[in-house]
Amino acid sequence: MKTKTFVLAPDSFKESMTAMEVCVAMEKGLRKVFPAANYIHVPMADGGEGTVQSLVDASGGQIYSKVVKGPLGEPVTAQYGILGDGVTAAIEMASASGIHHVTKGNKNPLITTTYGTGELIRECLDKGIKKLIIGIGGSATNDGGTGMAEALGTGFLDAAGHALPRGGGYLDRLERIDISALDPRLQQVSMIVACDVTNPLCGEHGASRVFGPQKGATPEMVRQLDAGLAHYAEIVKRQLDKDVRDIPGAGAAGGLGAGLLIFTQAVLRKGIEIVIEHTGLKQKIAEADVVFTGEGGIDFQTKFGKTPYGVAKAAKESGKKVIAVAGYIGDGIEALYEEGIDAVFGIVPGAGELEQLLAEGPQNVTRTCENIARVLKLSE
Amino acid sequence: MKTKTFVLAPDSFKESMTAMEVCVAMEKGLRKVFPAANYIHVPMADGGEGTVQSLVDASGGQIYSKVVKGPLGEPVTAQYGILGDGVTAAIEMASASGIHHVTKGNKNPLITTTYGTGELIRECLDKGIKKLIIGIGGSATNDGGTGMAEALGTGFLDAAGHALPRGGGYLDRLERIDISALDPRLQQVSMIVACDVTNPLCGEHGASRVFGPQKGATPEMVRQLDAGLAHYAEIVKRQLDKDVRDIPGAGAAGGLGAGLLIFTQAVLRKGIEIVIEHTGLKQKIAEADVVFTGEGGIDFQTKFGKTPYGVAKAAKESGKKVIAVAGYIGDGIEALYEEGIDAVFGIVPGAGELEQLLAEGPQNVTRTCENIARVLKLSE
Repeated sequence: MKTKTFVLAPDSFKESMTAMEVCVAMEKGLRKVFPAANYIHVPMADGGEGTVQSLVDASGGQIYSKVVKGPLGEPVTAQYGILGDGVTAAIEMASASGIHHVTKGNKNPLITTTYGTGELIRECLDKGIKKLIIGIGGSATNDGGTGMAEALGTGFLDAAGHALPRGGGYLDRLERIDISALDPRLQQVSMIVACDVTNPLCGEHGASRVFGPQKGATPEMVRQLDAGLAHYAEIVKRQLDKDVRDIPGAGAAGGLGAGLLIFTQAVLRKGIEIVIEHTGLKQKIAEADVVFTGEGGIDFQTKFGKTPYGVAKAAKESGKKVIAVAGYIGDGIEALYEEGIDAVFGIVPGAGELEQLLAEGPQNVTRTCENIARVLKLSE
Repeated sequence: MKTKTFVLAPDSFKESMTAMEVCVAMEKGLRKVFPAANYIHVPMADGGEGTVQSLVDASGGQIYSKVVKGPLGEPVTAQYGILGDGVTAAIEMASASGIHHVTKGNKNPLITTTYGTGELIRECLDKGIKKLIIGIGGSATNDGGTGMAEALGTGFLDAAGHALPRGGGYLDRLERIDISALDPRLQQVSMIVACDVTNPLCGEHGASRVFGPQKGATPEMVRQLDAGLAHYAEIVKRQLDKDVRDIPGAGAAGGLGAGLLIFTQAVLRKGIEIVIEHTGLKQKIAEADVVFTGEGGIDFQTKFGKTPYGVAKAAKESGKKVIAVAGYIGDGIEALYEEGIDAVFGIVPGAGELEQLLAEGPQNVTRTCENIARVLKLSE
């Protein structure tokens, strides 16, 4: 019997394990049954939380920290990663400008800013990065990416020529955008934005209307923010000759999608595709007999671009078997069978509190994978 | 490819599904993947709760009800089953004399009686039964089976020739046992007692000391009950020429084990073995490609005579594969792999309250079995 090769390509199990920790737990279980097999770890992510960690882990890179301005201007310690190739960096905007930095009573998208995200980008430029992958989920902001652009040298001026205060609430007063001091290195950097939403910048499906309320916007604030972004798009079109208003994804992260399109060489792509490419998943899968994937939760939403779905699609290109494990199995997993996930198993051993189950994640992944391996072995 | 045959031989999932309901849920999942397979349902039990239901279900028999005296003499509605052959009956003593009939404040093993169990046996004799299977777990009693024997015609008399009050607390006054009116039909009935404990009647490992406290006995009551059973054994030895005191299992169910050995043609056997025999499990397994089993909980205790263990042992005699599912997976399942259970899967989809998980048992068994089948199918 030839030596088996297993590719282990899970997402993180949120609040329980990083993707790399899931890989280790999977291998531990599988190895009990197939001790001589090859195990290839490909810690995955889908562009959301954990993407930097996974890209760093999968490439043998490193995580760095930097103190930047948080969404309300306060100092926060944000992380970014430099991948194993030394010239690609990865940022999650939420690390600098995420909603988790804002306490409930302080939510106010009129004044939250993406400035800190811009600082992270600048830090990467200072390190000589040539390619930047940026995940833009979980934002606290609605500023159209103006904060980010300001940190990189752009001026946003009112009629009197004064710099606008930061935040989406002041964009209606924007008269002139000054890009004369915009960091020229941005033109040399390939900027890949992980963006799974298709919302335009403004209007009914725009950033303010759809995502504003969860960032603390009242209906009145939503109107003000939406008008501000529309005015901003108008000024951009007139002065910079760029029409981003209706580009799908421009409305992501409070319009940071638009900001990146305007001020950098950004390309918006699906998060999972970016991760698959930068982890070399497909080449690794080509070696595999069986591919294991998984995520904290798997349900009908998984097929909208989550990691197990992406891994399954990649695996099916080379006709490989895919087995998924999850801490939570929700409704609608039948649809995943058609998408290439051959089987899904829950790891939870019985009734229990979430907190304890999160703590016991690794051993439950190990036990479940061992038993899946035992069934695979049965048929040999 | 030849038509597959699956034998489905689970125990009940307590408070969630009968064994038959588990069979149905298993088949539903497996059939999605193997629509043309043969499915043989063998609802199982291990001699404990659910044994009557399983034997009836597995044999196409019927459940009957009868009002009898409960442990405290009050009327209770008890069940018994007549198996598909029409001449074998099954009783669980707990149905008449179980601890669940006694509210917490009323626990008192000095006065609880197995009389109702004797009434059930008599009812079976009246129906012409030739073989009686009796499960003796979950008792509220410590009367040495004297209540049972009284219901079948035995007299337990004090020095004045008066009948003793019922209950283990009066046995120290026993002077004479009158079996002249003991139902003669008992001699014609094969009585098979499902008994997994090996406790003797009296002493350190006896009924009163080991099981008395959980039936409400104080330390003083334990001493009184133990002395009463010892005195009872002495009288039995002297007057009936039977020495049951140290027989393993005599101390089961507060000494009902001893009572059945004294007053009937009882043979004590492991519960799971009785069920395996009376369900024809081994013959059915001979047809199987894969055997599925399961129980509400599976852990290190499973190998001490629980259903999945018994099914695995039976399956391994003919070299069949065994896969188990459980609502709860505890510590020590590795030991089961050596005992013939090839793989164990939890059915729980995620963190959750026990009550809801119990209610959703069938769908979770179905989903898990479908996915196990999908893995089996992968290797075809």
